[in-house]
Amino acid sequence: MSDRIRIGMVGTGRIGKLHAQTLVQRVPDVALVAVTDVNTAAAQAVAAEVGVPKVAPSFEALLADDSIQAVVIASATDTHAPFIVQAAQAGKHIFCEKPISADLKAIDEALAAVERAGVKLMIGFNRRFDPNHQRIKQAIERGEIGTPHLLHIISRDPSPPPVSYIKVSGGLFFDMTIHDFDMARFLLGDVTEVYAAGGVMVDPAIGAAGDIDTAVITLRFTNGAIGTIDNSRQAVYGYDQRVEVFGSGGSASSGNWYADAVTLSTADNVRRGLPLNFFIERYTPSYQAELTAFARCLQDDTPPPVTGADGRAPVVIALAALRSLKENRPVKLSEI
Amino acid sequence: MSDRIRIGMVGTGRIGKLHAQTLVQRVPDVALVAVTDVNTAAAQAVAAEVGVPKVAPSFEALLADDSIQAVVIASATDTHAPFIVQAAQAGKHIFCEKPISADLKAIDEALAAVERAGVKLMIGFNRRFDPNHQRIKQAIERGEIGTPHLLHIISRDPSPPPVSYIKVSGGLFFDMTIHDFDMARFLLGDVTEVYAAGGVMVDPAIGAAGDIDTAVITLRFTNGAIGTIDNSRQAVYGYDQRVEVFGSGGSASSGNWYADAVTLSTADNVRRGLPLNFFIERYTPSYQAELTAFARCLQDDTPPPVTGADGRAPVVIALAALRSLKENRPVKLSEI
Amino acid sequence: MSDRIRIGMVGTGRIGKLHAQTLVQRVPDVALVAVTDVNTAAAQAVAAEVGVPKVAPSFEALLADDSIQAVVIASATDTHAPFIVQAAQAGKHIFCEKPISADLKAIDEALAAVERAGVKLMIGFNRRFDPNHQRIKQAIERGEIGTPHLLHIISRDPSPPPVSYIKVSGGLFFDMTIHDFDMARFLLGDVTEVYAAGGVMVDPAIGAAGDIDTAVITLRFTNGAIGTIDNSRQAVYGYDQRVEVFGSGGSASSGNWYADAVTLSTADNVRRGLPLNFFIERYTPSYQAELTAFARCLQDDTPPPVTGADGRAPVVIALAALRSLKENRPVKLSEI
Amino acid sequence: MSDRIRIGMVGTGRIGKLHAQTLVQRVPDVALVAVTDVNTAAAQAVAAEVGVPKVAPSFEALLADDSIQAVVIASATDTHAPFIVQAAQAGKHIFCEKPISADLKAIDEALAAVERAGVKLMIGFNRRFDPNHQRIKQAIERGEIGTPHLLHIISRDPSPPPVSYIKVSGGLFFDMTIHDFDMARFLLGDVTEVYAAGGVMVDPAIGAAGDIDTAVITLRFTNGAIGTIDNSRQAVYGYDQRVEVFGSGGSASSGNWYADAVTLSTADNVRRGLPLNFFIERYTPSYQAELTAFARCLQDDTPPPVTGADGRAPVVIALAALRSLKENRPVKLSEI
Repeated sequence: MSDRIRIGMVGTGRIGKLHAQTLVQRVPDVALVAVTDVNTAAAQAVAAEVGVPKVAPSFEALLADDSIQAVVIASATDTHAPFIVQAAQAGKHIFCEKPISADLKAIDEALAAVERAGVKLMIGFNRRFDPNHQRIKQAIERGEIGTPHLLHIISRDPSPPPVSYIKVSGGLFFDMTIHDFDMARFLLGDVTEVYAAGGVMVDPAIGAAGDIDTAVITLRFTNGAIGTIDNSRQAVYGYDQRVEVFGSGGSASSGNWYADAVTLSTADNVRRGLPLNFFIERYTPSYQAELTAFARCLQDDTPPPVTGADGRAPVVIALAALRSLKENRPVKLSEI
Repeated sequence: MSDRIRIGMVGTGRIGKLHAQTLVQRVPDVALVAVTDVNTAAAQAVAAEVGVPKVAPSFEALLADDSIQAVVIASATDTHAPFIVQAAQAGKHIFCEKPISADLKAIDEALAAVERAGVKLMIGFNRRFDPNHQRIKQAIERGEIGTPHLLHIISRDPSPPPVSYIKVSGGLFFDMTIHDFDMARFLLGDVTEVYAAGGVMVDPAIGAAGDIDTAVITLRFTNGAIGTIDNSRQAVYGYDQRVEVFGSGGSASSGNWYADAVTLSTADNVRRGLPLNFFIERYTPSYQAELTAFARCLQDDTPPPVTGADGRAPVVIALAALRSLKENRPVKLSEI
Repeated sequence: MSDRIRIGMVGTGRIGKLHAQTLVQRVPDVALVAVTDVNTAAAQAVAAEVGVPKVAPSFEALLADDSIQAVVIASATDTHAPFIVQAAQAGKHIFCEKPISADLKAIDEALAAVERAGVKLMIGFNRRFDPNHQRIKQAIERGEIGTPHLLHIISRDPSPPPVSYIKVSGGLFFDMTIHDFDMARFLLGDVTEVYAAGGVMVDPAIGAAGDIDTAVITLRFTNGAIGTIDNSRQAVYGYDQRVEVFGSGGSASSGNWYADAVTLSTADNVRRGLPLNFFIERYTPSYQAELTAFARCLQDDTPPPVTGADGRAPVVIALAALRSLKENRPVKLSEI
Repeated sequence: MSDRIRIGMVGTGRIGKLHAQTLVQRVPDVALVAVTDVNTAAAQAVAAEVGVPKVAPSFEALLADDSIQAVVIASATDTHAPFIVQAAQAGKHIFCEKPISADLKAIDEALAAVERAGVKLMIGFNRRFDPNHQRIKQAIERGEIGTPHLLHIISRDPSPPPVSYIKVSGGLFFDMTIHDFDMARFLLGDVTEVYAAGGVMVDPAIGAAGDIDTAVITLRFTNGAIGTIDNSRQAVYGYDQRVEVFGSGGSASSGNWYADAVTLSTADNVRRGLPLNFFIERYTPSYQAELTAFARCLQDDTPPPVTGADGRAPVVIALAALRSLKENRPVKLSEI
């Protein structure tokens, strides 16, 4: 156990608990030695359930533990940027959940602190590690489908989060589409212009909270390609996560994942069960893969596969999308 | 119209009417000039509906028309062999529905009459002309799946015929499996031994009539391969017609055909509609293709693509299967 | 034959010949009695091949034949509107290929002439009669997927037409997307605003001709829904025609059609053949269905299923899309 | 850790190592405290790699450890029965890999020893725990497909084992089909009669070793249903594990599992990658589930989900199949 990378984690909510379980059970090269949370009782419960030796009374206390080499930041979004700064100053390597912040200035300060400290920062865009998205990326890189012309991302949640969450999350573009903006960059590179069309179709309460629940976003890429992102807060049949890249040599497209591969044919229809319901079921392997990749970049001293710049770029797109939605016009990223 | 092959048809029941429509509407190189049936009213109704100029009072009268070059025999199975003999003696080319007869002696007499007369005889194993089965045959011939080792034929009807029909049809092996025996030969060549397991699972009245409604038949081929045929009189989801050939280099397998390619995803399931319900829907293109091939072999004076010998062979397999079922042992075709 | 609707056709190019074959072979309720074309030799060749009794020397001569009840206009696009006017004045019912015209004034004159004459006018948006698109429409109408929120139309050709054609066709939006604009209206109703993003990705010669070859168009509908259309002049794997409608109760999506349903599994991959290559293969049944529907609306004296207004509306969308593309902003249809 | 069930394991070959990893990493309720193997170096290597505290010098020594409550037997097949006897006499609960033995007398002695000792015995038919097979079982139990009439099991390995292994394994029916015999019983209950057709099609060396490499087996069940098993030692496209149950109310059929759900469409074809290559990839979740179920039946003191009788029954079927193959006739299980 002495060779394992010693990790501390802040934030033991839904995603924090998932990361804790993943680190303990599925990433052999690390040791999760301490967790902390503003809700100490929650941190204690997770520590007991998952098997983490120590609960730190605060993030500061956790950072003060010299045996800890790296931190996983899975706390509320508005703490990400300041926690990055603190962790960098304490000389810890950092894995931070997306998004870093909705505020570019805060992001830039965090990235500057990381750079000054010379620590590694990896952003938790787990979908990059999903086998389907990886296979599509590979098809592009190998030239199996020629030069990409068009991209479509379907990204629909099974049901909306509580309106209380939407009020603090930054809204659809920041808590949900941010993943798709990153996926677009992962597959086709940098974006130059955004046009966002959206509406409130699922729940008027979401509209009353100042957000939309359904969107279609058009992206133009530096390489000339054009893409769309299709978002809905509510696909009644479950989590819908599909991507298609169309190019001069063909098309690569992914379907959803299912719990089984059984088809029933009866007098009514030919049917199968629903897709895996949500991100915890669908993206389990990608959470393991991203934390394994984080451990590996620390062990091998290589650059993290998802950098701080990768964390900043989709926020710029989200800000452009928000302006586009308000002004109903295409917005260049250079305007942000 | 003078260049078209002039055809007369006997039998205007279900399959006869289908052939009449196909000949008139979909085979430009022929002219269906006369039909006849023991039920003259039926013949008149079909002629009127489809647009056939003449109704002959009898098969003899139809054969006496010197302008008729070829006949299509679509009458009751027990008339096939004698009608072949009569038509051959009249110098007409012959397209005859399957099976020629359940009686090998009658078949041999019919084939001898055809040979003496020097006319062409084609047997109506339409499934050989289905795009799926043709594609699998092509995969074998092109070596895309190597040397065939195993064959599976799934062949299930949506619902059983009337028991009255079963009593005169010769039973499952003669009215239904006969197609599958032919398909087995079409794909893998001659059969040497048969083992038939079957039962009455769908309707006890079928058992009371001395037949079975469900069967699994094992075939051994001259080339060493082994195959199975799976038959049921009742697949509640519709006509089920699938084939798989597995070989040293891979596998070729076919699915069913559907009326559309639409998938519905709802809170209940992910589903599509049922397969095309029965042979008329599923095999429409193959009926057109087989009659077109018949016309072509007459025009080009080439051998028919499905010969009299091809009509005889599956009857031998059916007889062996029947004996196997009764004696519960594998039966060599040389025993028949 | 006396009861059949007597039809004359103008234009015997690719689509004209297809309509002639369909009318003669697959629409029993009509008689195609005459064809005409500016290229008389072409008209004669088609008449001979398909079996049309008469070749008229001109459209005027064809209209002068009092026995002709209806005309099919399949000539060059710029003749559609004036031919509609002439045919209406001659008291003929009219089936006209899409689009009526790229000029709204010409369309309005044609529709006015039709209204004055009291004849029927049907526009050839054949895709409305495709089983897949019909099934999706049915899913919406039956409420199987709830209230529609999002629509995606993938519509890609296997290869671009000659640049010479593009120069006179009105370009991508008028010769290709026009079908998709109609499909959008068929499925989700009227459009209020359009945003078009496009580029030259397939062939620079298309750009040199002033057109684009790749486009992503965002549509907003009167009912609040949002849709996209994805167009490419060149999908190397063949004709790609898919639609998805996503709603509050689920999703209906269609796949492409294939020549067979055979899957090959080898040491390399698991594969099937390419989709049907182009519109003639894919949409054959829809051409038959639309002309049958035209015949039926004449026989039953009911409104045509695709009206003159349905022919005008997608032209307005195309004009808005063109302006949007030029000005890079969403354009309201009320601006046109 | 004190509450965990303390387990010792004998046999650290391929399957033993897999079980060790599964127990340590994926079954939280157990502690694998010792391993042993005739090859002590192998046992030490596995212990070191997987993290097992102790390597016992012999199975006897392992059994002498009073802290061990249960053993996992993953040694060579011919040791299974005697090791069961020893473990039972030592009062240990037992998880034993399939098959118990090819010798019914040895099996009966082992089962008698288990009964006398009052310990639990579970047999490692892991496929019962696969999500696909479980879903088909569920479809039967829920009546979703009515009364079962027909069963088809496709079970093909990607490549044959070494001939040296075949010589000691008991051959195809004992080392490979044994799983399918169990699956048949799992889904449709007891078998009454077997007919086996087989051949040497993959590799003559397998024939020279006295075995076959390809087989089609017909099963008749107590409930009247009929089934087939299709086996090949070599499917070049990978592990092929599919099941179909057809009944009075419809059909449930399973496909294979793939590493991703991505389809590539190019000018050549429409394709996806190969199925998961072999049992370790395909059945990973089922190995975890079966050992978890073993732990649970010890914790809850409930009967094991796969009993000693379930371990004996497929051996009887295999013996009948072997006799059927030799004598080329259907063999009743009552003959064995």
